[in-house]
Amino acid sequence: MLRVDSRKADELRTITMTPHVNKYAEGSVMIEAGDTKVICTASVEERVPPFLKGQGKGWVTAEYSMLPRATQTRNQREANRGKLSGRTMEIQRLIGRALRSVVNLEALGERTIHLDCDVIQADGGTRTTSITGAFVALALAVGKISEQHKLNKFPITDYLASVSVGIVGNQAMLDLNYAEDSTAKVDMNVVMTGKGAFVELQGTGEEAPFTKDELNSMMGLAEKGIQDMIERQKQVLGTIGDKIGAVTHA
Amino acid sequence: MLRVDSRKADELRTITMTPHVNKYAEGSVMIEAGDTKVICTASVEERVPPFLKGQGKGWVTAEYSMLPRATQTRNQREANRGKLSGRTMEIQRLIGRALRSVVNLEALGERTIHLDCDVIQADGGTRTTSITGAFVALALAVGKISEQHKLNKFPITDYLASVSVGIVGNQAMLDLNYAEDSTAKVDMNVVMTGKGAFVELQGTGEEAPFTKDELNSMMGLAEKGIQDMIERQKQVLGTIGDKIGAVTHA
Amino acid sequence: MLRVDSRKADELRTITMTPHVNKYAEGSVMIEAGDTKVICTASVEERVPPFLKGQGKGWVTAEYSMLPRATQTRNQREANRGKLSGRTMEIQRLIGRALRSVVNLEALGERTIHLDCDVIQADGGTRTTSITGAFVALALAVGKISEQHKLNKFPITDYLASVSVGIVGNQAMLDLNYAEDSTAKVDMNVVMTGKGAFVELQGTGEEAPFTKDELNSMMGLAEKGIQDMIERQKQVLGTIGDKIGAVTHA
Amino acid sequence: MLRVDSRKADELRTITMTPHVNKYAEGSVMIEAGDTKVICTASVEERVPPFLKGQGKGWVTAEYSMLPRATQTRNQREANRGKLSGRTMEIQRLIGRALRSVVNLEALGERTIHLDCDVIQADGGTRTTSITGAFVALALAVGKISEQHKLNKFPITDYLASVSVGIVGNQAMLDLNYAEDSTAKVDMNVVMTGKGAFVELQGTGEEAPFTKDELNSMMGLAEKGIQDMIERQKQVLGTIGDKIGAVTHA
Amino acid sequence: MLRVDSRKADELRTITMTPHVNKYAEGSVMIEAGDTKVICTASVEERVPPFLKGQGKGWVTAEYSMLPRATQTRNQREANRGKLSGRTMEIQRLIGRALRSVVNLEALGERTIHLDCDVIQADGGTRTTSITGAFVALALAVGKISEQHKLNKFPITDYLASVSVGIVGNQAMLDLNYAEDSTAKVDMNVVMTGKGAFVELQGTGEEAPFTKDELNSMMGLAEKGIQDMIERQKQVLGTIGDKIGAVTHA
Amino acid sequence: MLRVDSRKADELRTITMTPHVNKYAEGSVMIEAGDTKVICTASVEERVPPFLKGQGKGWVTAEYSMLPRATQTRNQREANRGKLSGRTMEIQRLIGRALRSVVNLEALGERTIHLDCDVIQADGGTRTTSITGAFVALALAVGKISEQHKLNKFPITDYLASVSVGIVGNQAMLDLNYAEDSTAKVDMNVVMTGKGAFVELQGTGEEAPFTKDELNSMMGLAEKGIQDMIERQKQVLGTIGDKIGAVTHA
Repeated sequence: MLRVDSRKADELRTITMTPHVNKYAEGSVMIEAGDTKVICTASVEERVPPFLKGQGKGWVTAEYSMLPRATQTRNQREANRGKLSGRTMEIQRLIGRALRSVVNLEALGERTIHLDCDVIQADGGTRTTSITGAFVALALAVGKISEQHKLNKFPITDYLASVSVGIVGNQAMLDLNYAEDSTAKVDMNVVMTGKGAFVELQGTGEEAPFTKDELNSMMGLAEKGIQDMIERQKQVLGTIGDKIGAVTHA
Repeated sequence: MLRVDSRKADELRTITMTPHVNKYAEGSVMIEAGDTKVICTASVEERVPPFLKGQGKGWVTAEYSMLPRATQTRNQREANRGKLSGRTMEIQRLIGRALRSVVNLEALGERTIHLDCDVIQADGGTRTTSITGAFVALALAVGKISEQHKLNKFPITDYLASVSVGIVGNQAMLDLNYAEDSTAKVDMNVVMTGKGAFVELQGTGEEAPFTKDELNSMMGLAEKGIQDMIERQKQVLGTIGDKIGAVTHA
Repeated sequence: MLRVDSRKADELRTITMTPHVNKYAEGSVMIEAGDTKVICTASVEERVPPFLKGQGKGWVTAEYSMLPRATQTRNQREANRGKLSGRTMEIQRLIGRALRSVVNLEALGERTIHLDCDVIQADGGTRTTSITGAFVALALAVGKISEQHKLNKFPITDYLASVSVGIVGNQAMLDLNYAEDSTAKVDMNVVMTGKGAFVELQGTGEEAPFTKDELNSMMGLAEKGIQDMIERQKQVLGTIGDKIGAVTHA
Repeated sequence: MLRVDSRKADELRTITMTPHVNKYAEGSVMIEAGDTKVICTASVEERVPPFLKGQGKGWVTAEYSMLPRATQTRNQREANRGKLSGRTMEIQRLIGRALRSVVNLEALGERTIHLDCDVIQADGGTRTTSITGAFVALALAVGKISEQHKLNKFPITDYLASVSVGIVGNQAMLDLNYAEDSTAKVDMNVVMTGKGAFVELQGTGEEAPFTKDELNSMMGLAEKGIQDMIERQKQVLGTIGDKIGAVTHA
Repeated sequence: MLRVDSRKADELRTITMTPHVNKYAEGSVMIEAGDTKVICTASVEERVPPFLKGQGKGWVTAEYSMLPRATQTRNQREANRGKLSGRTMEIQRLIGRALRSVVNLEALGERTIHLDCDVIQADGGTRTTSITGAFVALALAVGKISEQHKLNKFPITDYLASVSVGIVGNQAMLDLNYAEDSTAKVDMNVVMTGKGAFVELQGTGEEAPFTKDELNSMMGLAEKGIQDMIERQKQVLGTIGDKIGAVTHA
Repeated sequence: MLRVDSRKADELRTITMTPHVNKYAEGSVMIEAGDTKVICTASVEERVPPFLKGQGKGWVTAEYSMLPRATQTRNQREANRGKLSGRTMEIQRLIGRALRSVVNLEALGERTIHLDCDVIQADGGTRTTSITGAFVALALAVGKISEQHKLNKFPITDYLASVSVGIVGNQAMLDLNYAEDSTAKVDMNVVMTGKGAFVELQGTGEEAPFTKDELNSMMGLAEKGIQDMIERQKQVLGTIGDKIGAVTHA
């Protein structure tokens, strides 16, 4: 079965990562996965949230937003509605949690890194693309403060990337675009490390429950896709990437 | 290794389900899992949200809240802060999505069922306990409107329950209480149907990534725990339960 | 004239007070007045609000809420509407003010006691029942910190309870349930101390103004009802109750 | 005992009512009680709130606000804080309820009268002064639409005014100013009709409970003060006042 | 061409400034321009906002609001809608900015002056009238703290007033009332100092763009109108006015 | 005097306009003015806001936002603070008003065009750059619906662009970047049409008032800069631009 964009079931969309797209941010990247485009910036702040004060630990947190016309139909801005939607909160909690899983917060020191993922154009997979891009922005920012000799050890413990998988028709498929996503009976987002361990697994079968076999097929695709993503991250990060993994997660 | 409350790794906490605890609600149950206590009510409203008007379909939606002193330390009410936390939104979206996966909305007709899950006391697993209880409240309410001959077919397609599993120390464990949950390196919530298919899978390894083997161990425990939960649901629902599965999910 | 539930005009509904219903709260009680059920918890916090800092005085404050299906028709949660209704704010101000009238705040020391009154099921008189129950939760919590030798003197100066009275038809009646309340032409909430003095009096004749004679009849009923309530409080509090009144209100 | 401003215990402050202070409002008055100054406007809207639609009845509602520097110390605007305080909500609910008690809503027809009470300067008794002034604005507005032959019957059933009383030292006093109010051990607001019946009674003894005798003394003072207020209303309203009482409250 | 109120094109409406209308505020004035009436109060607070702490400088800030029935049709209160409108925010930012342009903040010392402009009745030009009145309230308040020897130098550097001009029909006109404003094709608000320099210029031709010649005509009228306004300010301020200009703007 | 980036006083920064940057929007452009980058999209909605319903007229409205790290220091998202800042509201009101001045709303028909101006990177002049870019997005969108034969006449009446001018040191300068803007004593934003008439003029001399001569110098620079901008717009719009001006503003 050919997919709408002629990809094979286990094939990623065209992935592009353009680093340094923002002149102010300590780390930034424009990541594109097919027609999905996300600007990820990492901002370093030399203090931590109140709940961490004085503990010698840092913090990594994320925010996610879509421009109003990132989608087929224009969406109302959340700033106008006066509050974040449940979907946005869920996504930004996921991004932050995922990134913290590969950061040794003690080694980061008492500073906060804010990851901002702003979706410029959306065509499926915005949350997984945001995680993959945010990792790059984070590594670039950490690389920068590392060069400034503010860190004793490089605090990133492993690579991290994410991809979506799903069951469309009766077939497991990798990296769904919007058209596939809206007809999928199962939708799963997977976050994995460079060493191949799971960090997050969120599968939902609102349209139809799924079996263990289907779960296994999807996991296999996700594993392959994420390792491909991590290869691209390595190319973009260059020598900064070599420092990853010097310490382990606390 | 013995657990803090002397349970075996694959043992549920004491589960109690007391139906009809509210004199107004069409369906209600107080569900207790160890020291976690949740009042679940199902309220039937004879109309649907605007986005479904005129489509001949119903809707099932959920809200979740904790009393301020449900926990060790008193929490500020979300009504006072003026907005729901990300955690609350994530949980109530999960509950609603899970329940809709076993309801044929066409068979329900143009009405909404509101599930309210109010946590009276929390000791871990409040979201999974809420799903298991909400299913009972939902079935009781559907049973009631079915008796009033408002339905052509009984719209619930299968049983549904949920449980948490995790890796504590190096061991996979079923149905974590708060003490276990706060030391677990992996925390996973699983929702399954009576036929044993997955509806939701949410695993997070913020403290440490997890392997495929660990994932498989957790899934095995979850499967067993959920089938036990469904046995209790059957006892509480009695003859209403016999009508479940007459139609399939649309 | 017989009342809808066969009570006499000066008869309270069945009152039940179940203490220690919450394993975390310093004081807690489930109070039932007929079909009205309220969980009252008292939470002790070892600091005071900013406006009292450094004055050597404590604070007592209350919050009130109803579960969405506490009533015949489901109500929207105030957390969803993003703000408290005027009715809720009025009630929680009343509860806090009433309880503070029998607490010597200097003797309490620099700590805050939060009373949470959560209405599980409502059938009239939820605010008066909340006050009566909150007093018990407060006394239990104060009893607990007294046992921990944190207090020089027991800071509660007198018993306190509350009841509603009204004019239904042309007759003054005690402790209205919802059916009576909605046809009453006058509705009055009275709070009194164990010594029989008034703390709060809130009477409203939106449907029809009332005369001095009617006021006097209602006051007589309220006095009797409140002394009955206080008898129940004494039974529940036992020896803790013996310490009440050791100091006077500052 | 002489009062701070040399008044006798049963003496009102200087009362002034200046009608027609607003060129747009259907009814308006500036009411002054000592240094308390309130602009009351009545705005007629030819429709009713959703909950009354199609019932052939009207509605009367009130809003209350203080200018930021109405008081000794500047207060933050509620519009800036993004929500009304509990105090404001309590007061505007009271004003609306009190005024509705003397309006036959069927005779008013399907229209809403909005009473706005804006406190320009506050020196105690702002809520009672607002009620007394709002009644005048309401009567002027009803007089105006009556002249336009929009009403079959004059819908105001009786005069209505309000005053505060309290126990200062050990003496009951009428119409407390701010200095007295802040030292009073009991504070009571009373609303009465022209025929001398009670509409609202709100007494609070946060500082000290009060006895039946004290209650009676305060009620006597309130009765006298309110009848004096109503005399002033009659002078301001002139012939419009003659139409009051033609119908009774529904 | 005669104007609706028989004024000449370059003629101001009747201007009245009544100082000391508020017994609490350090400075206050009721300013009337035709039927537009604004109460302006200046409140002195002996501290500065966080962003200025410890810099030895003061702050001047303004808030603007309209009573609900200041206009032909009643407006909803912004406190009820839970937020300020864009129009209100724009106006109060303008008032604050304009006043700060004639205050030497170092000479003011570490204190804040809050200007509150509350529109009691609106008939066009409420923002310009507010600026002119707020300057008087500010000068009175500064005069008062100057008399208390809290200031080394009088910190107001120049007089300041504001007026609106516009093109109605094809003619430039000064000080538009509401009827003129709503038919004007161009509307311009001008703020100038006593020395005749511009502080703010806000012209908008939503209905039709305007030429340089039209701009020049409007500027000429504004200049004349503002100098007239400043004459009135001088009369009201008396000897306080003589101190203005002792220091220059920092 | 050379400027920080070696420009002459009357020289624009490098301007780039990249059309069609968004695959969903009816019109879109990325506009760059030096390091200021704004994505402008125009979204066509086939209905009008309630206040225009049934009048046969269309509407044009704008929203403005900055990504959190568009600036040197990261800014909190307005969606997180729960409300728009006064600055944002002021800017988006300005953009909408300016664009409506060159659209014949009757000729547009009953549809709304939403202009979204999202600042990706900010280096001064974001509001003027947004207006210039939004005009291009608007024209592209109108061009598109015109091609679909939904319009009888092309509703855009003239070109429109905007630029900032200011007094830096003692010299009038065109198109200030952030470094210049923060030291300018006067800052003025000018919006003009292709025919050279003024649409908006907003000048503010918070740091120092300005003279008529300075105003005239600034206006001259603005005129030149805006005509340059309009030349670029013409190149981007091509044949669509030829239709502009077929009708006049209503």
